[in-house]
Amino acid sequence: MALDGVRALVFDVFGTVVDWRGGVAREAEPFLERHGAEEINPTAFADAWRRLYSPAMEEIRSGRRPFTRLDVLHRENLEAILPEFGIDPASVPVSALDELNLAWHRLDPWPDAVAGLTRLKARRIIAPLSNGNIILMLDMAKRSGIPWDAILGAEVAQAYKPMPEAYLRTADVLAMRPEEICLVAAHNDDLAAARACGLRTAFVPRPTEHGPAQTTDLHADGDWDVVAGDFIELAERLQS
Amino acid sequence: MALDGVRALVFDVFGTVVDWRGGVAREAEPFLERHGAEEINPTAFADAWRRLYSPAMEEIRSGRRPFTRLDVLHRENLEAILPEFGIDPASVPVSALDELNLAWHRLDPWPDAVAGLTRLKARRIIAPLSNGNIILMLDMAKRSGIPWDAILGAEVAQAYKPMPEAYLRTADVLAMRPEEICLVAAHNDDLAAARACGLRTAFVPRPTEHGPAQTTDLHADGDWDVVAGDFIELAERLQS
Repeated sequence: MALDGVRALVFDVFGTVVDWRGGVAREAEPFLERHGAEEINPTAFADAWRRLYSPAMEEIRSGRRPFTRLDVLHRENLEAILPEFGIDPASVPVSALDELNLAWHRLDPWPDAVAGLTRLKARRIIAPLSNGNIILMLDMAKRSGIPWDAILGAEVAQAYKPMPEAYLRTADVLAMRPEEICLVAAHNDDLAAARACGLRTAFVPRPTEHGPAQTTDLHADGDWDVVAGDFIELAERLQS
Repeated sequence: MALDGVRALVFDVFGTVVDWRGGVAREAEPFLERHGAEEINPTAFADAWRRLYSPAMEEIRSGRRPFTRLDVLHRENLEAILPEFGIDPASVPVSALDELNLAWHRLDPWPDAVAGLTRLKARRIIAPLSNGNIILMLDMAKRSGIPWDAILGAEVAQAYKPMPEAYLRTADVLAMRPEEICLVAAHNDDLAAARACGLRTAFVPRPTEHGPAQTTDLHADGDWDVVAGDFIELAERLQS
């Protein structure tokens, strides 16, 4: 059986479990219309918002800023990008900005995700190992029926991927050796960082995460322990 | 509706959701037989083990010791009590002690607990706010089908109840005001500490937690927001 000895499957979430781009665009569209930016492509808005994701975490990974949960970073990044789209953040009610920030709590899973996770959960612990914070992951899961056994990730580890602490503190909380844990991700760099910490690795490509013209992460760049087309196939591969 | 405006129910677990005394006794019995202590009452052994629970946490609450997860404290306490029962810990294989320590991961819910939680989960977030650590709560839930939305508690808050930080950091992680959260507990002192932090309170007595001769926590000592006979009644009371 693939992944013999693995007791917990931990998942990247943004892009791997859920479609962040489509979900943020869906939530941004009425906001843009309400604030006089109806000509803006909501998907371009989602991409711009996401573009500040990694730089914001880099402030924390580098030690320049203490650990700060992703909801706070998303909120700051939202205010930062609005002027690019012709919207003065000071002209928008705070409650409307807070509400739009919750777009990230309302992302839809890819069509195979909930069914696959439900099957995977029968034999192993399943938990997110995302840079998203606990209430973000919790709201998202409750809205769409993602059956996590626990919410792990950056806020529990107090470290953002791909810092080794994000993976190793997750193993510590689970009281498992790294090789008893497998990261499932659609991103080769996440898997490489997990492997460097001793975790097992499963690649599930999500070739439209960045839209139809996506050029990255279309294929496995490493000899990951498992490569599966979606979570249903992953569940089939992991059955004895 | 009782608890109007409450978005999350957080639960004490040992005694409130699960029967720790019966579960630890059940797991201890074969251990005691194997190690020449078959005349020992396993329930007395469970009580002795539990008696060191609060003093061990007090070392951490007082600041004399850094935060240490409950599995580690339970393991230390186990070695501390074995001589009282005529067992030299050095004579027992480490693997047998490690295994017995997992007794706390295998406690059975009270008969109403899973059905009640499943109903409560339909309308609100449900999560443990226990002093038990994440993998302890996770193993327990997975074994018996407790449908938590997330595993919160001392390890996430890095503080043991009844320290205010245990309640307030849980509210912070949930991004909620304290009054949007209700603690459900069988222990008046836990509810009093939660109320002092602004949380709402629900008392569900568990009159046999300490056995048939229990004298404590048989009744509500405060005017808690809700008092219910069990989790099914609690779910009925909280429906609109």
